[in-house]
Amino acid sequence: MSKIQRSNQAFMNEILNHPVSPERIERLSMKCIESEAPAHAFSNREWIVVKRMIHTTADFSLMDDVVFSSGAVDAAVAALRAASPIYTDANMIRAGLSIPRLKSVSAEYGPEKIHCHVADEDVAAKAVAAGLPRSLFAVKKAEPVLGGGIAVFGNAPVALLELNRMVIEEGLVPALVIGMPVGFVHVVECKKELVSLGVPYIAIQGRRGGSPLAVSVVHALCSIAVMK
Amino acid sequence: MSKIQRSNQAFMNEILNHPVSPERIERLSMKCIESEAPAHAFSNREWIVVKRMIHTTADFSLMDDVVFSSGAVDAAVAALRAASPIYTDANMIRAGLSIPRLKSVSAEYGPEKIHCHVADEDVAAKAVAAGLPRSLFAVKKAEPVLGGGIAVFGNAPVALLELNRMVIEEGLVPALVIGMPVGFVHVVECKKELVSLGVPYIAIQGRRGGSPLAVSVVHALCSIAVMK
Repeated sequence: MSKIQRSNQAFMNEILNHPVSPERIERLSMKCIESEAPAHAFSNREWIVVKRMIHTTADFSLMDDVVFSSGAVDAAVAALRAASPIYTDANMIRAGLSIPRLKSVSAEYGPEKIHCHVADEDVAAKAVAAGLPRSLFAVKKAEPVLGGGIAVFGNAPVALLELNRMVIEEGLVPALVIGMPVGFVHVVECKKELVSLGVPYIAIQGRRGGSPLAVSVVHALCSIAVMK
Repeated sequence: MSKIQRSNQAFMNEILNHPVSPERIERLSMKCIESEAPAHAFSNREWIVVKRMIHTTADFSLMDDVVFSSGAVDAAVAALRAASPIYTDANMIRAGLSIPRLKSVSAEYGPEKIHCHVADEDVAAKAVAAGLPRSLFAVKKAEPVLGGGIAVFGNAPVALLELNRMVIEEGLVPALVIGMPVGFVHVVECKKELVSLGVPYIAIQGRRGGSPLAVSVVHALCSIAVMK
């Protein structure tokens, strides 16, 4: 930084003089993560997912809390290759998911395969009437696509709790649950319940999570699904 | 959790039997943050912003790295009350920003006041031709709204570096820069440069950042801007 302070020269010019492609930046980032990450017990394919999560947050401490059910990556790959519908609990996740990446796994993917009802007017009306979060009624509305679907939670614990309830009480079987709500109320509980259900899951134990993490998991799974 | 394991009773039913409104969940979360947070030197209004960032990530260690320029909150409040245009470096940020919250500060806010060019076709074509990230050309295209605008970066360091260059070389003066790119390459540098420029900023030093954090800052600033 001394250079910048001396010359009032924008750092951007260094990049323009020595351009680094987006692909090379990603390779450099992943190399950096590999070199700094402590030892771990993830399988090769699980580590692809966790590395992408670290890439998204620059937070290595996630390695202590990410958990996979046995066979979760296989289940995810099969579901993506079958172009299974995707439910997201937040519009930020829907906005972050890359249709080209999904299409690289199955040409059948398109925006209409990604469902999010949290901003629907009928959902909002039910939530106000009940005094409960919209995300709860959004999940109820999604029930037709949740059986055999990929359910992605990066925001609301109550949304995941409602999915858990459907599994317990109604026998719903999603292809995969990505369980990454974040926060302080009901968040630890919703994940503890998820991992007890016997459905395929990738989750972050504890309070942490978030939309970019949930998106990064789907994208990492896409990269695995296109491998030979 | 022992109760769930014994009875196979979904935790959701406890919530339905004792409903907690979204407002109360937020109050409980903020109380939890207040009680667990270590001592700090943020002003009252800065702490409103940092608390919202912790609420979004469940990560108290952010407190060590969030920095405000002197008068940043005042600058932000003035800009929001004037319905200044908002530029975001990622569609996830645009998707996460609440129009009703922005409208609560100024009725002039609407979706057309939030600009994001990273997915524009002309931007993509220029990026491919140059072998440089799309986010760079997206910021260039946004120049007309960046002077006096609120510039929100939660993704790409190169986008913030290009804004920094415009400030240094072209005399651009944004109303506020929210500097929260995340990652391993050029991320630390883009923030070091930002805080040296003399423009109002709220930033996270180091590698961390992300779209939800950037969104949470804007929403916290809205809550401050509507206070008497």
